[in-house]
Amino acid sequence: MAGGDNKPHVVIIGGGFAGIYAAKTLKRAPVRVTILDRRNHHLFQPLLYQVATAALAAPDIAAPIRKIFKRQKNVTVLMAEVARIDAGGKRVILTDGEMDYDYLILAAGARDNYFGNPHWAKFAPGLKTIDDALEIRRRVLTAFEKAERETDKKRRRELMTFVVIGGGPTGVELAGALSEIARRTMARNFRNVDPSEARVILLEGSPRVLPPFDERLSESAKRQLQDLGVEVQTGTMVRDIGEGFVETDAETIRAGTILWGAGVKASPLTESLGAELDRGGRVIVAPDLSVPGHAELFAAGDLAAAKSGDDFAPGVAPAAIQMGRHAAMNIKRAVAQKETLPFVYADKGMLATIGRSRAVAQLGRLRFRGWIAWMLWLVIHIFFLIGFRNRVMVLLDWTAAYVTFNRGARIILEGKRGECEDPHPPGS
Amino acid sequence: MAGGDNKPHVVIIGGGFAGIYAAKTLKRAPVRVTILDRRNHHLFQPLLYQVATAALAAPDIAAPIRKIFKRQKNVTVLMAEVARIDAGGKRVILTDGEMDYDYLILAAGARDNYFGNPHWAKFAPGLKTIDDALEIRRRVLTAFEKAERETDKKRRRELMTFVVIGGGPTGVELAGALSEIARRTMARNFRNVDPSEARVILLEGSPRVLPPFDERLSESAKRQLQDLGVEVQTGTMVRDIGEGFVETDAETIRAGTILWGAGVKASPLTESLGAELDRGGRVIVAPDLSVPGHAELFAAGDLAAAKSGDDFAPGVAPAAIQMGRHAAMNIKRAVAQKETLPFVYADKGMLATIGRSRAVAQLGRLRFRGWIAWMLWLVIHIFFLIGFRNRVMVLLDWTAAYVTFNRGARIILEGKRGECEDPHPPGS
Repeated sequence: MAGGDNKPHVVIIGGGFAGIYAAKTLKRAPVRVTILDRRNHHLFQPLLYQVATAALAAPDIAAPIRKIFKRQKNVTVLMAEVARIDAGGKRVILTDGEMDYDYLILAAGARDNYFGNPHWAKFAPGLKTIDDALEIRRRVLTAFEKAERETDKKRRRELMTFVVIGGGPTGVELAGALSEIARRTMARNFRNVDPSEARVILLEGSPRVLPPFDERLSESAKRQLQDLGVEVQTGTMVRDIGEGFVETDAETIRAGTILWGAGVKASPLTESLGAELDRGGRVIVAPDLSVPGHAELFAAGDLAAAKSGDDFAPGVAPAAIQMGRHAAMNIKRAVAQKETLPFVYADKGMLATIGRSRAVAQLGRLRFRGWIAWMLWLVIHIFFLIGFRNRVMVLLDWTAAYVTFNRGARIILEGKRGECEDPHPPGS
Repeated sequence: MAGGDNKPHVVIIGGGFAGIYAAKTLKRAPVRVTILDRRNHHLFQPLLYQVATAALAAPDIAAPIRKIFKRQKNVTVLMAEVARIDAGGKRVILTDGEMDYDYLILAAGARDNYFGNPHWAKFAPGLKTIDDALEIRRRVLTAFEKAERETDKKRRRELMTFVVIGGGPTGVELAGALSEIARRTMARNFRNVDPSEARVILLEGSPRVLPPFDERLSESAKRQLQDLGVEVQTGTMVRDIGEGFVETDAETIRAGTILWGAGVKASPLTESLGAELDRGGRVIVAPDLSVPGHAELFAAGDLAAAKSGDDFAPGVAPAAIQMGRHAAMNIKRAVAQKETLPFVYADKGMLATIGRSRAVAQLGRLRFRGWIAWMLWLVIHIFFLIGFRNRVMVLLDWTAAYVTFNRGARIILEGKRGECEDPHPPGS
């Protein structure tokens, strides 16, 4: 398919952080690179919750993969869906074709993990793709619209109840943003309901929110959430989810909107490798990030369980970037007949934002909370956004939102998933 | 539903230009106003083709209706779908309820007219809503992605053929933008295909493009389109449309993407009025814009056939704004027991843009073409965009696009219409 010269062919599956940075690292290498992705865009996932909560437009946090590599002539980008990997035959099997490789970097990322309850997805969507974000935005905004029209008081209260499951960074960010939407953005926009009466409930199974953070920062995050009006319930396990309700070990909460941020598992492509996987479906890679038994096959990013020292590298963007670069560097070494090197994760710290002027940051031994942590978060996220236009647009949207408390993207798009729609329904 | 005081209740169906300006005109009137719309946002339709062609993000040209009326306390905005109007009983029948009115302004707009061939809609989507625009964007960008992977030369050529049906402003704008995308934006982004070889064909049934314009401007528009590489076929009737082909009276064109901009018809809500309609389903209104036989029921915007002098007011935004204002003014007069006044359309001229520095404008006796017409178009569209944020964002996107030839919103969103999707498909 991508024929041509005799240089080794490196196939990269996935245009996320690991895949993009792997391809960039191969810029001057004597290889042909093909990036395969189901979507045409790289997604800046750390800001995805802002699309879901109507602060940013979808194109603000996405960049066409082929635009990123417009000038890197050894890269071909193909929009294609991978069905499985034939590691023995060094082939990638697509849903509509196949492709040989000399080296492969599997960087297809992770998806939501419903821990054996896939039917919960319908009632409590997760947040991994732009379409997930637009679906969440649709549900949140529609809940307020329905509440405005509802005459039954009990039902109105349910519509204005939002449950976020999972107290990791995504759950904390979603809960904080939802509370701000209700209390500030929507203020004075409605006539029959008062959005500030909305309940936002954050459920976390472990004893504290943001479990990987320092205990004092978890405590601070909880207080900052509570200041915003979020009800934080830690040590609470979810037993069941259905249409409009969440059953915990303590009670049944009736809620119009339920969002899922409680965990991820690796892309199912890892299952086709025949390699050892961990509980989250991640490939347990060798120290050089190769898949044991396949020196030419590497895994990077959220689907790789890579040991660095005593710990595994976490499922965050900086780790994915480092792994992508490292896998590519090892391919360059292998092409040059050099020995590959072990991966060492350089921990740059952790950040989580909660809302306007509210965040926590843990950088080495330093701990920050409140406004200064929030500024750190802003600067770092703007800095790492791929593409100049995106940076400018996001900065402007954020400035406008900071000044006016408004959210620029309060638009309900129709594209509902899992439903067939008539393209031209009657009525206004 | 919107209970309360004893002031007359004015219901406005539709949050487009006519509906929005009608409600604004009622700001200080002693009435309660309810705006009903199926969507939560007002759409700046003149720029919709820019969302379809990836120049703007959807939220750039849309504003939540309830945000527009946040401070106008006599307006309640409800997201609701109208099934029909019971003009005798002065009731609006919703798909899930009903609402009484004292005065009604029907301003539900128009939709695509396939002239008795509704099955064409699937093969040749039109451009009336944001979801239409995102669907067109998806088809156009996906066509290039598929061409990049296609090995069969003939099939590749088909994928890179784009047919736009209809040579009015929407068709001209779409065709010009498509040609620019292929020749400039996509340049050097692909490895296996050369986007500048794409064919863009504009089909128009009448002898010239932009029929309502002065003949010399039509000729100029045609030349400007041809300079951009668009094949303009006037006097060409479409006989049939199917999967990947358009049959005209001259030939059958195989094309991967077919877009429809050949005409509109009024919202089917007009049928429930029992009033006389024209061929396009528009209500033939009395001089004061009321529906004959119903002094309390007005029609405004694209669904109203309003005579002004010898001609009917055209289906453009300025006419909709003027009709909306006039209908509201007549309601104010009726409430004050004054006689209603006849509508007079003030023609502000016509503008159509073709591409970068290319446009035609007809303002009174003045004719403009090329760069100066394009600047006029830019200034007027920025000026009338609803909402400060939208203006700034659109200006920035345009400036960036002008400098870089890039388009900021080249993101394929998934939400396909008319198809059921698995929320979590396998693969990368």
